[in-house]
Amino acid sequence: MILLLGAGGYVGQAFAAALRERGWEYRPCSRAEGDYTRFDVLLDLLRKVRPEFVISAAGFTGKPNVDACESARAETLLGNTLFPSTLAQACHAAAVPWGHVSSGCVYSGAKIVDAAGTRIETDLTRADVRRLIESNPGVVRGFTEEDEPNFSFRRPPCSFYSGTKALAEENVRPLGGGYLWRLRIPFDEVDHPKNYLTKLLTYPRLYDNFNSLSHRGDFARACLDLWRLRAPFGVYNITNPGYVGTRQVADLIQRVLAPDRKFEFWTNDEEFYRVAAKTPRSNCILDCSRLRAAGVQLRGVEEALEASLNSWSQS
Amino acid sequence: MILLLGAGGYVGQAFAAALRERGWEYRPCSRAEGDYTRFDVLLDLLRKVRPEFVISAAGFTGKPNVDACESARAETLLGNTLFPSTLAQACHAAAVPWGHVSSGCVYSGAKIVDAAGTRIETDLTRADVRRLIESNPGVVRGFTEEDEPNFSFRRPPCSFYSGTKALAEENVRPLGGGYLWRLRIPFDEVDHPKNYLTKLLTYPRLYDNFNSLSHRGDFARACLDLWRLRAPFGVYNITNPGYVGTRQVADLIQRVLAPDRKFEFWTNDEEFYRVAAKTPRSNCILDCSRLRAAGVQLRGVEEALEASLNSWSQS
Repeated sequence: MILLLGAGGYVGQAFAAALRERGWEYRPCSRAEGDYTRFDVLLDLLRKVRPEFVISAAGFTGKPNVDACESARAETLLGNTLFPSTLAQACHAAAVPWGHVSSGCVYSGAKIVDAAGTRIETDLTRADVRRLIESNPGVVRGFTEEDEPNFSFRRPPCSFYSGTKALAEENVRPLGGGYLWRLRIPFDEVDHPKNYLTKLLTYPRLYDNFNSLSHRGDFARACLDLWRLRAPFGVYNITNPGYVGTRQVADLIQRVLAPDRKFEFWTNDEEFYRVAAKTPRSNCILDCSRLRAAGVQLRGVEEALEASLNSWSQS
Repeated sequence: MILLLGAGGYVGQAFAAALRERGWEYRPCSRAEGDYTRFDVLLDLLRKVRPEFVISAAGFTGKPNVDACESARAETLLGNTLFPSTLAQACHAAAVPWGHVSSGCVYSGAKIVDAAGTRIETDLTRADVRRLIESNPGVVRGFTEEDEPNFSFRRPPCSFYSGTKALAEENVRPLGGGYLWRLRIPFDEVDHPKNYLTKLLTYPRLYDNFNSLSHRGDFARACLDLWRLRAPFGVYNITNPGYVGTRQVADLIQRVLAPDRKFEFWTNDEEFYRVAAKTPRSNCILDCSRLRAAGVQLRGVEEALEASLNSWSQS
């Protein structure tokens, strides 16, 4: 039996659906039933229930967006740094393997490689990335799990949210015994305030950038596949291969959904950060070849986006 | 046997001295011998060594002062929030009681009580506290362990350091099984960069305020006494009873040590924070009646200061 923590959240619901789809026995847990963020409560639960595996989709993301984490520091740290540590430690004490939803937003930008594929630059501005993608896309690469986060408390500036996520990975990784599954900007066919497509449809103006993205259902199924395949524990970038620009996604929405609006964009970063955002945003390209090498292949990001829009359903 | 973590630090050394003084068997541990901040390493150590009690004097304070913690966020969180959590959790799993050095700097100011001793105000400015101490000292009280921190991530503004200390207490307290010993501005007779008296002697200008203080040796002995007496686990303010103003301590230094300098003070908060400090400082008065009620009586702060200066020794 699999224990599912944070079953009621946006990502937790996708895990529940994927588990049901496969007919895997699981027990959902939400904070309301018992405070599993307490070590003693969680350890007792693990010893009583004896799950074969624990999935944690719990965390604190900030409402309506990541800016809210700047002032809610205690909640952000409790949810994103202390909780994963407690989870990994309780699971270690109970000898139960685990997987926790981490985030790809510990990076900013992309990296450039030379002909041999060696990393030569990671500190790229948004303009650098755009210029390279337009002029010489072959040298642009996503960050792998071996790349140190470059958008973290150790590499400021970063958002408080990203800092807490990167620190959790740093603290939990050496203990081992589980997976850190990096999600990156979730989307799917269901209208929801946390769905990237809903956000684009509702924001008055859009911020133009390049990103790797994770289809929510594909993400949950890939996580289950890693466990099913008994892939080595550790960190995995779990995004649909490739990356997209915001303008490209807006065009796709326009074409498929034909919404009764035109998409407008912020003129530049200066305007975006002055008017609409308080804290720096992570926009980044991730490499998911480790996931593929483990035997899990996701459809490309453009295909996943198009499929989501084609079966778009309003909640 | 007692396991002493962080034995090499400023406070750890005082614990080592107090343990030797009493002839209590102990095993000192420093990070160099093994990374006890890792849950698995610490749990193995506890299971192998089987100490009757663990003392943790480990933490991250910032050099030369608390401003350094503003930029060293990862280290500050790892040392002051994640580590105490790991300690309490490993000790819980190994069923070993523990004591950890926390800090009184989770408060700012003092509180005012009415005739019945009921709290009526805690959000006092530095000027409020001074005015009250001069006009009506009977209504000024220190914060007890039951008072919520008012200088923390939940009650900003605070220093990043204080935020991490308060969050650690919040996270660890419900788990129980050990002591959180609140130290507040350590001093003693030995010249040292972390000694409050050394700081006053070396700072070009002083910041005038009221504080409760902890004599380093008195603090360590009081902590050992709580364990010896098997006092109930939980949070304890461990300061020498009373409080002092910076001018009063400077006068005492002038009188006893007669240093070849005059003490100058910042004109006001505005000047201090503009020129000398980056992050807000906790200056506060603590109530230590819980410690006394547990059977541990420390000498008053003025007596401890005078004794330290009378036997002042330069390192």
